[in-house]
Amino acid sequence: MNRNIAIVGAGSMGTAMAVLLSKNGNKVRLWSPMIEEIEMLKKNREHITRLPGVKVAESVEFTNDILEACKEAEVVVLAVPSQTTRQNCKTLASIISKDTVVVTCSKGIENETCKLLSEIMQEELPDNNVAVLSGPSHAEEIGRDIPTTVVAACEKIETAEFLQDLFMTPNFRVYTNTDVVGVELGGALKNIIALCAGISDGLGYGDNTKAALMTRGIAEISRLGVAMGGCADTFSGLTGVGDLIVTCTSMHSRNRRAGILIGQGKSVQQALDEVNMVVEGVATTKPAYDLAKKLGVSMPITEEAYRILFEGKDPRSAVGALMTRDKKNEM
Amino acid sequence: MNRNIAIVGAGSMGTAMAVLLSKNGNKVRLWSPMIEEIEMLKKNREHITRLPGVKVAESVEFTNDILEACKEAEVVVLAVPSQTTRQNCKTLASIISKDTVVVTCSKGIENETCKLLSEIMQEELPDNNVAVLSGPSHAEEIGRDIPTTVVAACEKIETAEFLQDLFMTPNFRVYTNTDVVGVELGGALKNIIALCAGISDGLGYGDNTKAALMTRGIAEISRLGVAMGGCADTFSGLTGVGDLIVTCTSMHSRNRRAGILIGQGKSVQQALDEVNMVVEGVATTKPAYDLAKKLGVSMPITEEAYRILFEGKDPRSAVGALMTRDKKNEM
Repeated sequence: MNRNIAIVGAGSMGTAMAVLLSKNGNKVRLWSPMIEEIEMLKKNREHITRLPGVKVAESVEFTNDILEACKEAEVVVLAVPSQTTRQNCKTLASIISKDTVVVTCSKGIENETCKLLSEIMQEELPDNNVAVLSGPSHAEEIGRDIPTTVVAACEKIETAEFLQDLFMTPNFRVYTNTDVVGVELGGALKNIIALCAGISDGLGYGDNTKAALMTRGIAEISRLGVAMGGCADTFSGLTGVGDLIVTCTSMHSRNRRAGILIGQGKSVQQALDEVNMVVEGVATTKPAYDLAKKLGVSMPITEEAYRILFEGKDPRSAVGALMTRDKKNEM
Repeated sequence: MNRNIAIVGAGSMGTAMAVLLSKNGNKVRLWSPMIEEIEMLKKNREHITRLPGVKVAESVEFTNDILEACKEAEVVVLAVPSQTTRQNCKTLASIISKDTVVVTCSKGIENETCKLLSEIMQEELPDNNVAVLSGPSHAEEIGRDIPTTVVAACEKIETAEFLQDLFMTPNFRVYTNTDVVGVELGGALKNIIALCAGISDGLGYGDNTKAALMTRGIAEISRLGVAMGGCADTFSGLTGVGDLIVTCTSMHSRNRRAGILIGQGKSVQQALDEVNMVVEGVATTKPAYDLAKKLGVSMPITEEAYRILFEGKDPRSAVGALMTRDKKNEM
């Protein structure tokens, strides 16, 4: 492909996307609002804090100027903290053409409105095709060209297929799915389970404990997802159980790392300070908790996460509460 | 409970079961055919090679005499290599009463017949109630009283509930399920996927790659399971995806360890020699491959495992074959 692509956000995922998309022969501009970040990228052609060791091709332009970044962009890739999605789309609305496809790599639910990122994007960019890229895909491994599989989700299959062709390389396989709700929810809610898996690890519990938590976790994500109109099968796929697995078991996961620190006895704020990157699971827990209440869906793990994060509940008694629930038949 | 229990097989799982069941006030006898193993257990009250650091209660008797072990046994727990299940049941047939419940912790499929362990048990012990205990449960963690959840599966729900009460402790939660085929297949086939996950790790691939493999793995296990009469939901539960997760991600897993060595370039025999414990995934791959062929079920990961193990295929080209399959829509 030979497309003009703007990447909004130059953290680990934005940088990995620049590396990937430039490899495919596209013209890529990587934007960050932070002057020091762009200077660092220009000087080193490498994001030395977020994606160390991965060189960015000479063809990629770095810029602080969003107008410059989006000039003639056929595709805009959002790689920003999920809670800034609306503000970023508001900015894009006056800049990009209605033919530009906007795809997000972020994962979350808007805090006040409980809306999915695709809903926010469509609200702010009503004339554009919007889509989601999700799946088990740590930026650290995408940047190093390690075999990775993801899903491009869009209600319009043609747009999903366009993105599939755009992103696909021999080591980056892209599948399509039109179940945007299911794909988005899997990606957003798995961060809550990863936080809890980290807490279990931090408390000194074992692999058996964590596997039980993850199994129940995907079940409760699927329950909420189906109640919101998602397809049950999506939660058994790459963006459901696949992304849950990678996030709960890898040390690349900041959600899991934050959970480990909380399990070891740090306060939530101390844990966030120490990880020092956006921990989406914390921001996502409140809207997920609200949605479960509103829709009458049982989400015991999300409820305990909410109590730990926002009501100061002791992590050990939260895990205890999950282990001793009175459920006896598996089905 | 205060039951007479015989445990057949004194490896890591047999020893962990002795520790667990004696804690619950049962009278436990642990049997091994190996004289040195029983002497070592008597001397140390600890299995110093298979479950080091875990003390076995004074109330547990160790014996090489199967008659003595099974005397008045109300429950026999099998914790033996899966391929010895038939021979062990033949021995039990002339010893135990028809009221004795026989439950296996082993996971596999009989090599020549492609039969499940529960089928073999029922063939050899036609008058006994037979059951299966399965789920994400490394013996190393059960022995250390780390929170663990499993499923007791039996066609008769009363027997499953009896075993639930027998095994349950605050840190060992037992659920019941009557879908014996689904529970058994999940436990047996996940070892093949764990071998492949290990091979991926051994080749130097990443968490993204392994999560993709595991996601496709549970999908193909589920396809075969449903074709054999299992319930699709079982494969989303503790004995399906739960056990798959723990086996593919933990260093306790000998299947994964063997896979890592194969991925690093060792021959299959070298890997088995180095792990030096029963690697069930190797024995299970052939009957699983045969069953898939016979039932016309697509199992690409199992097929590649078969080619690596029995036809000398290069692991890297096998993983390559999996990554480049021409499947484009996720559903």
